[in-house]
Amino acid sequence: MNTFGHLLRVTTFGESHGPAIGCVVDGCPPGLPLAATDFAHDLERRATGRTRHTSQRHEADEIEILSGVYEGVTTGTPIALLIRNTDARSKDYTAIAAQFRPGHADYTYWAKYGLRDPRGGGRSSARETTMRVAAGVIAKKWLAGDGVEVRGFLSQIGEIRSSRPETPDWADVEANPFFWPDAAQVPELEAYMDALRKSGDSVGARVDVVATGLPAGWGEPVYGKLDAELASALMSINAVKGVEIGDGFDAVPMRGSVHRDVMRPGAGGAPDFDSNHAGGVLGGISTGQALRCSVAFKPTSSLRLPVESIDVAGNAVDVVTTGRHDPCVGIRATPICEAMVALVLMDQALRHRAQCGDVHPAR
Amino acid sequence: MNTFGHLLRVTTFGESHGPAIGCVVDGCPPGLPLAATDFAHDLERRATGRTRHTSQRHEADEIEILSGVYEGVTTGTPIALLIRNTDARSKDYTAIAAQFRPGHADYTYWAKYGLRDPRGGGRSSARETTMRVAAGVIAKKWLAGDGVEVRGFLSQIGEIRSSRPETPDWADVEANPFFWPDAAQVPELEAYMDALRKSGDSVGARVDVVATGLPAGWGEPVYGKLDAELASALMSINAVKGVEIGDGFDAVPMRGSVHRDVMRPGAGGAPDFDSNHAGGVLGGISTGQALRCSVAFKPTSSLRLPVESIDVAGNAVDVVTTGRHDPCVGIRATPICEAMVALVLMDQALRHRAQCGDVHPAR
Amino acid sequence: MNTFGHLLRVTTFGESHGPAIGCVVDGCPPGLPLAATDFAHDLERRATGRTRHTSQRHEADEIEILSGVYEGVTTGTPIALLIRNTDARSKDYTAIAAQFRPGHADYTYWAKYGLRDPRGGGRSSARETTMRVAAGVIAKKWLAGDGVEVRGFLSQIGEIRSSRPETPDWADVEANPFFWPDAAQVPELEAYMDALRKSGDSVGARVDVVATGLPAGWGEPVYGKLDAELASALMSINAVKGVEIGDGFDAVPMRGSVHRDVMRPGAGGAPDFDSNHAGGVLGGISTGQALRCSVAFKPTSSLRLPVESIDVAGNAVDVVTTGRHDPCVGIRATPICEAMVALVLMDQALRHRAQCGDVHPAR
Amino acid sequence: MNTFGHLLRVTTFGESHGPAIGCVVDGCPPGLPLAATDFAHDLERRATGRTRHTSQRHEADEIEILSGVYEGVTTGTPIALLIRNTDARSKDYTAIAAQFRPGHADYTYWAKYGLRDPRGGGRSSARETTMRVAAGVIAKKWLAGDGVEVRGFLSQIGEIRSSRPETPDWADVEANPFFWPDAAQVPELEAYMDALRKSGDSVGARVDVVATGLPAGWGEPVYGKLDAELASALMSINAVKGVEIGDGFDAVPMRGSVHRDVMRPGAGGAPDFDSNHAGGVLGGISTGQALRCSVAFKPTSSLRLPVESIDVAGNAVDVVTTGRHDPCVGIRATPICEAMVALVLMDQALRHRAQCGDVHPAR
Repeated sequence: MNTFGHLLRVTTFGESHGPAIGCVVDGCPPGLPLAATDFAHDLERRATGRTRHTSQRHEADEIEILSGVYEGVTTGTPIALLIRNTDARSKDYTAIAAQFRPGHADYTYWAKYGLRDPRGGGRSSARETTMRVAAGVIAKKWLAGDGVEVRGFLSQIGEIRSSRPETPDWADVEANPFFWPDAAQVPELEAYMDALRKSGDSVGARVDVVATGLPAGWGEPVYGKLDAELASALMSINAVKGVEIGDGFDAVPMRGSVHRDVMRPGAGGAPDFDSNHAGGVLGGISTGQALRCSVAFKPTSSLRLPVESIDVAGNAVDVVTTGRHDPCVGIRATPICEAMVALVLMDQALRHRAQCGDVHPAR
Repeated sequence: MNTFGHLLRVTTFGESHGPAIGCVVDGCPPGLPLAATDFAHDLERRATGRTRHTSQRHEADEIEILSGVYEGVTTGTPIALLIRNTDARSKDYTAIAAQFRPGHADYTYWAKYGLRDPRGGGRSSARETTMRVAAGVIAKKWLAGDGVEVRGFLSQIGEIRSSRPETPDWADVEANPFFWPDAAQVPELEAYMDALRKSGDSVGARVDVVATGLPAGWGEPVYGKLDAELASALMSINAVKGVEIGDGFDAVPMRGSVHRDVMRPGAGGAPDFDSNHAGGVLGGISTGQALRCSVAFKPTSSLRLPVESIDVAGNAVDVVTTGRHDPCVGIRATPICEAMVALVLMDQALRHRAQCGDVHPAR
Repeated sequence: MNTFGHLLRVTTFGESHGPAIGCVVDGCPPGLPLAATDFAHDLERRATGRTRHTSQRHEADEIEILSGVYEGVTTGTPIALLIRNTDARSKDYTAIAAQFRPGHADYTYWAKYGLRDPRGGGRSSARETTMRVAAGVIAKKWLAGDGVEVRGFLSQIGEIRSSRPETPDWADVEANPFFWPDAAQVPELEAYMDALRKSGDSVGARVDVVATGLPAGWGEPVYGKLDAELASALMSINAVKGVEIGDGFDAVPMRGSVHRDVMRPGAGGAPDFDSNHAGGVLGGISTGQALRCSVAFKPTSSLRLPVESIDVAGNAVDVVTTGRHDPCVGIRATPICEAMVALVLMDQALRHRAQCGDVHPAR
Repeated sequence: MNTFGHLLRVTTFGESHGPAIGCVVDGCPPGLPLAATDFAHDLERRATGRTRHTSQRHEADEIEILSGVYEGVTTGTPIALLIRNTDARSKDYTAIAAQFRPGHADYTYWAKYGLRDPRGGGRSSARETTMRVAAGVIAKKWLAGDGVEVRGFLSQIGEIRSSRPETPDWADVEANPFFWPDAAQVPELEAYMDALRKSGDSVGARVDVVATGLPAGWGEPVYGKLDAELASALMSINAVKGVEIGDGFDAVPMRGSVHRDVMRPGAGGAPDFDSNHAGGVLGGISTGQALRCSVAFKPTSSLRLPVESIDVAGNAVDVVTTGRHDPCVGIRATPICEAMVALVLMDQALRHRAQCGDVHPAR
């Protein structure tokens, strides 16, 4: 089950330290301009080694388009993308091949398959998310042609919270290594992360994603609801432990009289909403407001700090991780979350067009 | 997209006030004993009108098995279940047929399809979840044969929180109308709900679901991860706005040295875990620990309190809901959440058996 | 796997002698006028007991629409259709419950599932095809709105062949009980079938289906090719053993210089084809010509003539079938084949619209 | 829709003259030994340029395994295979970029997508089938571990028919360039093909595929029937126009008393069949006999002989194909047909195991 989506289908493959990673994007409409250079910006945003706050693995992440594009535009046939792994230092991991790192998928892959590729986490490595970002670039580009924009920012690192505006100043977000919306807090974050890195420990993070420009009407009840598919797409990202739409868990103590977003007559018969507690989705279908979702990332489990564990024979061992890792995986996760949201939206847009005749609902 | 699951596929149909609701459960293994009476218990737990704290709609909810069962056992062919709607008072809703109730799917269905069935919310009504519970009964029964049990409880109503034990005393949970694990708090809840009902307002709730007895090894990376499918399944339930696995959003401020659940040598080569912050899933695959997930329900939007809105012509209107509604939909949601978790688990168990040879991983 | 189609999804359920058969049609566009009476014509064409040449089982086949239609039009939500079985004489089959009828699915169901519903063939009965015809009515109606018509006729019964025109006089086809295109041959067929019935034996048949009005451009390479999906859809009908597109097996001895259909300048830039050996499909995509397919039905295996077989214990037995059966199942198969072709076409039309923007390709 | 299969899923990508072709095989059980050298034999059997009777394009067809294999065995994660295109002479095709070759997918791709990759047929080229053969190698290997063998032979070239034994002498089949079962006929075929090649024309062919060693019980009624999926899989191969199971169209004039294969008590409670008219499938489920299917290939449309056609502007043109082509594409199709049958069987075996507990049915 390495395929994602119904009409826009993304199949990814590849292990962290295998020869290559790649994906096949099937179902893309023909005629979309696409070049290898289109992928550079988002891959760079996701890349490790960009600042001292992320893993020091340096991958060139050069995308090769193997199919589906002719004379600079998509042809409607499957788009295959390939990235060769160039900085795969398998020797870093040899020592722990027979050990299970706590908090990682080492034990569960082994329990499931009876064997596993131990090099850098193999298939369970966050390296796989590179191809999600690449596929997401195609979705973002297609959506942009329709006026839909998907952006994300960090709203929490460890105990530090941002202001969580519905739509921050995106220039601010991109101007710091944390995708942080509040420029004034950045020095505090730098210090926080430096201290954390020195301690050898890690923290979690919260990423908020906002999609603007959506029409009302995207989403398929009842098991293909827009929010249900977002939840699955986001929860499938490595280290994610929670997903919220709109106010999420904050809705639990709220009163219905407050949470239900009041509608007033707006332009062209469409409603103006007083608020957006629902996060832009009602009954699994977009309302035309900004789509808001929020994602919890757990703290990285790969630490310099030793930890007790067991090996494949069931014996007690001490595990020390010496590879290159992120003190907060959530930092680089913003473009990954954006990509997953964009892929869900494009898939839903195509499905809406199939059943109802156009990408844009009639009203 | 009214079908759910890959190998165990549930297709539901029916509107709140149409002639009937039903489902088709395809892919169930043959030989499972199944009778119409098996459904009574969970349908009763989900039913309205059981106490004064839920909607006063009284549906008999009598299940008819139309296919797939012969001489008391499943045959491997699709199991069709049917419930006739008997207490559908369409007149309650006539007045608001052309109005969009805020916080409901009225506007979004209309925006998507250009028309809608306004009787009791039509397809978007929580009535649909009856068939989820029914399908879930089959999954629970099959899982029980394998030692897997799926149970839920309420961990929060409005501002009131329960103790959230990993596995509560289930007899206590079932002994009160709130699926509440702490018997001592029940009188407080009764008073809280009585006051709420009198105010005409509603609140949200949080439901926790625990599955015990799982082997390590269920789940399919990377887009069919166990937690990703749970997220989708739970988020697809009416009024759900958030899903967590394990510690969920509480993992954000945690340190990795705390969150990574330490493994020690256990019985038969399997690990003993010191803790279960991950909620029983690593890398999208079960660890063999208890599976823990938590779901946020928003407060019901159908209130006696009037609210401004618009109608299909885009004019301002006042909406007053006079039908029978729940002051807290989350109360009846426990069996629905259990059902969705059970369906995901059974589907994953079958998929694991397909690829790896047995329901129970070798180790 | 009782679901068929990608965007227009048909799920059928029910056994020959169970309480009911039914289907759920999901993904139908909203706004299509639909009433229970729409189904009568095609169900009557498929029905047994219409003439002495088909099985004498008399089913009322009255369709109840359970969902998905409001005020006479489809709403975009799943359409559930139900038919109660009223003439299920289970006693006819009791004697052979433990026996395997040669040429039937008795043995294979039992081998697969370890048990089976022996009443009238259970799930493997051609009774299931009633719901295919019902679902096909919806597809035909939607396609007709787009100028696409799907019709079928019998081109062979046993040794007797019809003239096989590309598009026969459909009034002639419907004027005789054999869906036969050549009126002059009908008396010969009547005599042939009377003699066959008296002999207690059966013969096979060949059904031709023609779809006209298709635009060029429907079909999805490479595994969702229009012809590949037609092949699957038609081969899934009970008793089908062969499927051809265009000239089919007659293309084997042909020369390429003859088979390749020459294109000449036609109206509006579209080609005029000199011939249609390809049957209206090239590279899995419709050419805009008439779509032609042909289907082989084997002779019924249920005969009055006794036959040797084995029982569930592996012992030799003599099987005599005393139920009501067709001396040539292919006769009633014409509307079933039409239905399957219509369902494939509508599904492909929706998929084309999703990816390429409109049901009708730009050229 | 470039993905094939339900649990064993093959996604192919690539154009005839693009940088590479490839596939992703997802869902393969872990622990299957697999090396790049495993693919050589079947790719060689499918390769062009092996004899004078096939196209003179010479592709090295060297497979690179990019993922899913660790230390020589499959890991359960997706297996990506890549072949670089090395002998793509795009200049051969430049002249006809704006022309539609009759009998090819040129016009239909253009009608569907509004544009097309004209280099060697782009995605519609038979080059794509290379990856089917590669994926089929994995399926064959896995099935062989279970005693199931899938083999094919040519039963007709143009007007010349072979003896069509149920299971020919496979050494004879492999000893000649035509996969022909009757050694004595080979000189006649050589002369026939030489004359054909000189004439500049082409003929069709019929390929028979036989799978032996199947248990009874594989297949999923009613829309995932074994024969229905075989029909789709085989019809999806380039140039295929017909598919038969067992006696196929020859069953039409047969009597039911002859066609129904008599069962007698056999070893271990399983039946001994007197005959195999059904081709090893009843009710969509395998009987345990040899699975027999037959496939019609049309004559190649790419000929040296000029032909009238139109161009993208709708003008009349003369098309002359000067590229390297096969006078009979069916000759190289045998391994492709085998591959598709093997992939269907493995997928069905996994699905059977999922629902019924083991690859081998209990009886």
